[in-house]
Amino acid sequence: MSDFAEQNADLKALIRTIPDFPKPGIQFRDITTLLLDPHGWATAIERMVAAVSGPVDLIAGIEARGFLFAAALAAPLKAGVLLIRKDGKLPGATIAEDYALEYGTDRIAIHADAFAPGARVLLVDDLIATGGTARAAVRLLHKAGAIVTQAQFLVDLPELGGADALRSDGIEASALIHFPGH
Amino acid sequence: MSDFAEQNADLKALIRTIPDFPKPGIQFRDITTLLLDPHGWATAIERMVAAVSGPVDLIAGIEARGFLFAAALAAPLKAGVLLIRKDGKLPGATIAEDYALEYGTDRIAIHADAFAPGARVLLVDDLIATGGTARAAVRLLHKAGAIVTQAQFLVDLPELGGADALRSDGIEASALIHFPGH
Repeated sequence: MSDFAEQNADLKALIRTIPDFPKPGIQFRDITTLLLDPHGWATAIERMVAAVSGPVDLIAGIEARGFLFAAALAAPLKAGVLLIRKDGKLPGATIAEDYALEYGTDRIAIHADAFAPGARVLLVDDLIATGGTARAAVRLLHKAGAIVTQAQFLVDLPELGGADALRSDGIEASALIHFPGH
Repeated sequence: MSDFAEQNADLKALIRTIPDFPKPGIQFRDITTLLLDPHGWATAIERMVAAVSGPVDLIAGIEARGFLFAAALAAPLKAGVLLIRKDGKLPGATIAEDYALEYGTDRIAIHADAFAPGARVLLVDDLIATGGTARAAVRLLHKAGAIVTQAQFLVDLPELGGADALRSDGIEASALIHFPGH
């Protein structure tokens, strides 16, 4: 998609780019400037709600910024909020999933009793880049018996391939805003 | 307030208590069971919105569970979302504030350019216990020039004194649910 064709140019203009964070060479797409804008935040949530393709029981947000989207989408979609947390943060018995980082691995978890098998779950996060965390979240949700209906993001960095990787996993993935060339 | 008088007994019943987390002797009040309940979550947000005492520009949520409340309250209150994050997580220039932990200190931060002096900010978090983090958040917001209009929590553990400490700092503090004796 070219910038010219970007459908959410109004929202894209609210995202700030910070060079060299968290390390040299990375163009960090900072959504905090969109969050601070009352109309921008409400509009982003409305458009994500409008892009939901069918009934969902739970909105799963990935810690920490994904929590923002899960919490705001839940009420309009008449769904609950499922927290996907870093390992060790949830107080009850958990199911966990590892994923590779540039150096080493990380682990995310959900409560083992959070939902019954067959629950329809919409996965949300602020941004998809390489998709390592999102794909691990899908594996985790599947392991717990969920039907992952869709994955939605505010921002996609398409050249990093995460959204395509989710699609190759059989997940419908979409974002409001794209930064080609990232 | 006695349990008998608890006004939000329906919501309180959705909170699960997990003994000895994160360490022996702590009764952890787990809000994830309320979050998973679509009606419970929507009702909690509605009641927090109804308890807001005047106009606000921003809802400040403390990382990570406070993000849930800030994100969900912002649209109905026509306000923006301000992230109060652990130090080192925000990409732009920050203002930070330290606070004491049982052993050592921790630090929270906001973007230095997040708002202009005089912004009216509602502080939210899932739970107030001793109030160390919430009081540091108020100091941080004041340092950045905000008017902290109010602090709202889903759960208060009143015997730990955090809500009273906020009140002694001049902040109107309230919660939907109280666990006396914690």
